[in-house]
Order: sequence, then C-alpha cells, then structure tokens
Amino acid sequence: MDIIYFEDVEVGKKRTKSVTYQVNKEEIIEFARHWDPRSFHIDEVAAVSSVFGGLVACSAHIFSILSWFATHGQSRTASIAALGFDKLRVHHPVRPSDTLSCSFECLEKRESQSKQDRGIVRTLATISNQQNIEVFSAIVTTMVAKRSQ
Amino acid sequence: MDIIYFEDVEVGKKRTKSVTYQVNKEEIIEFARHWDPRSFHIDEVAAVSSVFGGLVACSAHIFSILSWFATHGQSRTASIAALGFDKLRVHHPVRPSDTLSCSFECLEKRESQSKQDRGIVRTLATISNQQNIEVFSAIVTTMVAKRSQ
Repeated sequence: MDIIYFEDVEVGKKRTKSVTYQVNKEEIIEFARHWDPRSFHIDEVAAVSSVFGGLVACSAHIFSILSWFATHGQSRTASIAALGFDKLRVHHPVRPSDTLSCSFECLEKRESQSKQDRGIVRTLATISNQQNIEVFSAIVTTMVAKRSQ
Repeated sequence: MDIIYFEDVEVGKKRTKSVTYQVNKEEIIEFARHWDPRSFHIDEVAAVSSVFGGLVACSAHIFSILSWFATHGQSRTASIAALGFDKLRVHHPVRPSDTLSCSFECLEKRESQSKQDRGIVRTLATISNQQNIEVFSAIVTTMVAKRSQ
C-alpha cells in the first residue's frame, strides 16, 4: 500500500479510491441492531412507511464506511490522529445493494506549529453510489506525518 | 421508553442519559479491525508507541456509541431523520475499560417550513468518561416529529 505523507498532499487534488464498498441488507440490519436500532434501519416492513420508503443504512454505519475507505485501497494517508469532522451530511439514502465509491479532495494543508514532523490537512470526503449520486460528504481534519528525514 | 416529541424539547435544557456505555478492549479491536484497522486501534503493543500511548477506540466507534446513547435509556427523541452532524471532536482518547456517559443539550429548535407535523432541532451531544473528562462532542441536527394531533 502506498503511503501519502504530508509533503505528498496537493491542495485541490481529488483522489478517487481504487476500491468500492458493497452494502448489503444483512450488514445494514446487523450494524443498526447494535448501534442505532430505529425501525427504518432494522425492520424491512416498517421501513416502507418511514420517510425513506425502505431500509436505509444508519449514519454511524455510513461514517464507518468512510473510515473503511480511508484505510483500504492502493494508498492511504499517513494519519497520526483524526482532529475533527465537520459538515457531515447524508445527502441521499444508502440502501441495500448499493455499491459505494469514495473520493478525497484536499482543501487546505498547513505545517504543525509545535512539531516539525507533521502537518494538518483538511479534506473533503465524498461517498457516491453506483448511479453516481452523492450520498454522503464530510470535511475531515487530520494530523498527517511527514516523511522521515 | 418515553418519547420526546418536538413540543417537549426545551432550548437550553441538558438531559443526561440514564444509561452508561462500558467500553472494552475486545470491542475496540473488533470494531476497528473491520472499519479502521490502524495499529493504535487494533494492536495493543504497537499502540504503546503511537501518539496515544495505548489502544484507543476509533472515531467511527465513538460516533456509533453516540448513536447507541441516542437510542437507549429511559427516553429518546422522536427523530424522523438525522439531517447533519457538525463539529465532531474527539477531545480525549476513549480507552479500554472506560465507562461513558452522555448528555444532550438543545441549542435551537424551529418548525419545519414545509411540513406541519415536524420540526428541526439542533443538539449539542457530549460524551464523558468515568473521570468526568469530556471525550467527545458533536452538534447533531435532527428532524423531530410532533405529537399526533
């Protein structure tokens, strides 16, 4: 796996992950049963009469899929720690059988003021489904390591 | 379980959940192995030399625990859908054996402009550990049902 260090990050450059994530009904239900057991996440019949019109993945599940994308595929950023997440939005329901793809675009980068071996990177993360409909986005702020000198 | 409808939500009122969440090492590792397999989440030995000095729960796990708090305990809000999450911050590491508690404070509420049966509520969610150290906070915007007329 290629590691993207702070020096490698280019502001404005969008990278689409080389992997996709296959959602399935069983995982939507299993995840939500434990973490967010609302009827539109765990009950196929009740979900039909919800605002979603059918079973949808819970927000925590989609957030977890974002973490999966960040740590899988041909490359990953040399993150030391996640500093924060802003403007998380579910734009469109994530449904059983969706195939999700993900891209990361660097919005801003700056050197750490206290430590020379790292920097701070703000990234717009976007998840889309198989119809190229954007289903989720968030701005992720990460502490990223520089290459060892 | 008591259901808190839009009319019941009081701006400025802080509600502490009646339940606590017991974190354990096995769950931290199992969750992160699937969703965020970085060494400081899944490898006890490697985690010691990370910035955290030991194993810590991944952000997606903490976010999932927030969803757990929202849906467990003596009462829950009559959410129709989550509209967004802002300013998610991990203030302090969540470690094995932590006992977490959670409170929700309504920051703002307004009627839906398009549908009379619901409103929009902005809530500050805070998770603290057994030492009363705030470990996580986020602002959650939710569409909340009114009582049936």
